[in-house]
Amino acid sequence: MNEKTRKELRVIPLGGLGEVGKNMTLFEWNKKILIVDVGLKMPNETMLGIDYLIPNIACLKGREKDILGIIFTHGHYDHIGAVPYLIEKMGNPPIFASALTRGIIIKRQDGFPFQPKLDITEISEDSKIELGPFKLEFFHQNHNIADNLGIFIQTPVGNIMHTSDFKFDATPTNDKPTNLNRIKELASRGVLLLMMDSTGAENEGHSLSEKVILENLDEIFKGAKGRIITATFSSLISRIQNIIHLSEKYGRKVAIEGSGMKTNIEICRKLKHISTKKGTIVKTKNILDYPDNRITVLGTGAQGEGRAALMRIATKEHPHLKFQKGDTIIFSSSVIPGNERTVQELKDDILRQGAEVFHYKMMDIHAGGHANQDELEEMLKITKPKFLMPIHGQFSMFVALKKLAMEKLSMPEKDIILADNGNIINVTPTRAFIDKVTVPSNYIMVDGLGVGDIGEVVLRDRKALAEDGMFVIIAVVDKQLGKIKGSPDIISRGFVYLKESKDLLYQTRKKTIQIINKFAGTGGSVNWSYAKDELRNQIGQFLYDKTERRPIILPVIIEV
Amino acid sequence: MNEKTRKELRVIPLGGLGEVGKNMTLFEWNKKILIVDVGLKMPNETMLGIDYLIPNIACLKGREKDILGIIFTHGHYDHIGAVPYLIEKMGNPPIFASALTRGIIIKRQDGFPFQPKLDITEISEDSKIELGPFKLEFFHQNHNIADNLGIFIQTPVGNIMHTSDFKFDATPTNDKPTNLNRIKELASRGVLLLMMDSTGAENEGHSLSEKVILENLDEIFKGAKGRIITATFSSLISRIQNIIHLSEKYGRKVAIEGSGMKTNIEICRKLKHISTKKGTIVKTKNILDYPDNRITVLGTGAQGEGRAALMRIATKEHPHLKFQKGDTIIFSSSVIPGNERTVQELKDDILRQGAEVFHYKMMDIHAGGHANQDELEEMLKITKPKFLMPIHGQFSMFVALKKLAMEKLSMPEKDIILADNGNIINVTPTRAFIDKVTVPSNYIMVDGLGVGDIGEVVLRDRKALAEDGMFVIIAVVDKQLGKIKGSPDIISRGFVYLKESKDLLYQTRKKTIQIINKFAGTGGSVNWSYAKDELRNQIGQFLYDKTERRPIILPVIIEV
Repeated sequence: MNEKTRKELRVIPLGGLGEVGKNMTLFEWNKKILIVDVGLKMPNETMLGIDYLIPNIACLKGREKDILGIIFTHGHYDHIGAVPYLIEKMGNPPIFASALTRGIIIKRQDGFPFQPKLDITEISEDSKIELGPFKLEFFHQNHNIADNLGIFIQTPVGNIMHTSDFKFDATPTNDKPTNLNRIKELASRGVLLLMMDSTGAENEGHSLSEKVILENLDEIFKGAKGRIITATFSSLISRIQNIIHLSEKYGRKVAIEGSGMKTNIEICRKLKHISTKKGTIVKTKNILDYPDNRITVLGTGAQGEGRAALMRIATKEHPHLKFQKGDTIIFSSSVIPGNERTVQELKDDILRQGAEVFHYKMMDIHAGGHANQDELEEMLKITKPKFLMPIHGQFSMFVALKKLAMEKLSMPEKDIILADNGNIINVTPTRAFIDKVTVPSNYIMVDGLGVGDIGEVVLRDRKALAEDGMFVIIAVVDKQLGKIKGSPDIISRGFVYLKESKDLLYQTRKKTIQIINKFAGTGGSVNWSYAKDELRNQIGQFLYDKTERRPIILPVIIEV
Repeated sequence: MNEKTRKELRVIPLGGLGEVGKNMTLFEWNKKILIVDVGLKMPNETMLGIDYLIPNIACLKGREKDILGIIFTHGHYDHIGAVPYLIEKMGNPPIFASALTRGIIIKRQDGFPFQPKLDITEISEDSKIELGPFKLEFFHQNHNIADNLGIFIQTPVGNIMHTSDFKFDATPTNDKPTNLNRIKELASRGVLLLMMDSTGAENEGHSLSEKVILENLDEIFKGAKGRIITATFSSLISRIQNIIHLSEKYGRKVAIEGSGMKTNIEICRKLKHISTKKGTIVKTKNILDYPDNRITVLGTGAQGEGRAALMRIATKEHPHLKFQKGDTIIFSSSVIPGNERTVQELKDDILRQGAEVFHYKMMDIHAGGHANQDELEEMLKITKPKFLMPIHGQFSMFVALKKLAMEKLSMPEKDIILADNGNIINVTPTRAFIDKVTVPSNYIMVDGLGVGDIGEVVLRDRKALAEDGMFVIIAVVDKQLGKIKGSPDIISRGFVYLKESKDLLYQTRKKTIQIINKFAGTGGSVNWSYAKDELRNQIGQFLYDKTERRPIILPVIIEV
């Protein structure tokens, strides 16, 4: 990115392409940079001990002064979550976000001391911002969080439309439908490049409306004879509002469980995204003051999280709540891949305790946040872009969206850009193509306070330790006598249960003494590094023969 | 189980209840025991380094002579997989299995040397066996492996029908439909207790027929212009046969990849479950001798397994195969929960290399092996059992089956037994109830050669090691001088990248020296165990403050 001024606009995705998570895109013109979203991603199960993955912003190093600002489309962590880790490194540039998004970003900073104060401006659908060569306008879109904005960017080469995450819901709840008139008006000025959410591109038809969800939840509320305990995502504000409204409709008090849920409800009540009647919210410890059929518990934990209320009730560790016959448990959420087993076990536990369970596979009580094929087709027909670039998805979703655009809108294959993180997409009024040059775009691992300090070596060791544990052998060698002193110490964790492996340890010590004495007895200066290799190999093989396990062997030899 | 002779028949499930996996059930009358299935289960992701889970057969200890025999219903590992670990402990009792099941059991023993020769008798649908008080007959059922038998057990209290895993497929391929006439005939003698597969009880409608799958596969074969590369389960014999037949129909040679696939095809060709025309099968290394549209590759790897052919082709590590534009890749399998991410990445990799991908979410090219609600209802209507006991499923599936039996067949709730592993279900001609007494039924972990030697302590250590690694501090103390000798050694793995953490290590050494010298300098005999606790706590806290990670701290103090 350090060449001379060029005529193309450059679009540089640093995250979110070929993956769902850590969305971040740069738009560069004449050395000036606009950024959209700075998100994080959850690590996969092979990244042991890692907390988050965040984008690599190496290409911005030394470019802090060129950053004009960051636009956040909405408040989900895959769009805002890397702010505390990266904002200072980017020189704390101006931030623009809608009211709820702004509230969530600011609240999140509380968890990270020593952060600079954010320079954050609230925007809405009606805002117009000019940042260097970029003129920005916005449009309201449905998603499963409120205050979600698509972006219309006027650039020197033409107009770019960035959909953010979106779906079309003609009958949303506590929200207006996606502003199609506004999108049409913006699109009428011409769309050179459409960057479009592809997450739902493999799903047929139209996404479910929140109205349907609400009607189904109403049915469950109407029929429930005892307590209702609901679990959903803490960012699913309109769902939370619906559950509160339904509780009020059926004369139920609402107890809120989970700190994330409490925080978000607090932010949303201030922003008037959530309203409650006086007296509706009660403390969980007071619910016994009301009859069972006058109580709703609203919490997180639908993913089977160990510390969330739902799991603690199921395992009988909750101080105030126990499941009982007559309870109705509603999982108003999908299951995030990877959580299937835990959620299944949680449901089983609840059922064993006699409660009734409703989940999204039984009934439409959850909708995702992304447009399915019908909505994607409609968006393409409204915007009629010259170039299409699928974003926010796995590569298979990009391929599905490309197929759709070719089949339904006869877009030529060459006008659809399937890019990867780190690609530089050059855009001119007549061309859009991927540069041969790329920027670094590997993920950066966050582990505790460490950002990027965990590499493949540490992960490989964690994996080996996780599989078969470790085995430290400490031998003290008497230099004068040229032999081992006493019996070697052995420390092992995660390999075998030591108390029941006395014979194995005895034989290992015996073998260690033989090996060490062979070396120590040779006189002169001993090559201890070679001796350690021998210990590692021979003891490793011996333990494998006995157990078919391969702990990490760590020999320590101390000469005295 | 050691009381005096009793009048009830006792049904004792040791695995397979409240879970999908490690199926094993005992039937006991007058101290004599019949066993159905001895399966294994894959560990979940929290059981680090564990290979398999197998049933606990502690209640059979000392009862070897009472075991009349083991019936195996079919050759899936969740029904036969624990044989090598448990058969000797059970006194190597007589085994009865259908031809294919027998072949798979015997083949599997090859991987385990020093096993007793199995006493194994081949049975078929027409067999009649008498084992002590039990008279056994069998019925052919569809499942996604051939030679699957349900069992009809005449007992002194009445007839028990055990469905094994089943579905009804009126148009199976390379198989006959479930023998409904036979089931009707057996049921006409009266069914006291029906033990029924509940895996599909949460799914509406009827399971897909293999004929539909075959027709869809035929469509793909017909349209494919280049090579076809298919991946399916190696035990899905009829699917494998179909792919071979389709290849022959469209003039393609078939190269087989994967040792599990090769082994099963070999067993099945001997048993005539799979037939191939002369010259159909070719070696993978020779496929370049044929045009692309004359080649099918048939392998495993549809779960994204790292060593399977599909992944090795995708990562360009396969010696003879590379994906190319024009290739058609068919995932003729479901995704086993837990493998979603890996399979998605594999599909993305294949798509990036220009090949076309078909999978079961796009098209009906896979069917599971279990009856859905319509078939379960039909089975209940045919067998009209007095008592129903759901087996082979999570508790939520049991609840779904119970609901179905109550709603569709008006079965009284009290006649439906929702049991757990380790329960003893007493069955008389008029009652079926769960005893208050239970037998041990926890899972036993297999890790390498160790069966049951890994316990919670070792697993907890592996988890801690996996999260944040370990940190060994070795200090040599000069007894005479009452102070530490030299600088402490530090060995750490999986915690930080040591080469880039010199300052942290320097400070840790300094702190260690301070702590040790405080103790060593006190004169007299030092309480080193207390000193070690201090090191563990203080160094642990120091490292946490600096990194927010908690490695396992292992202090070693050597006095010289």
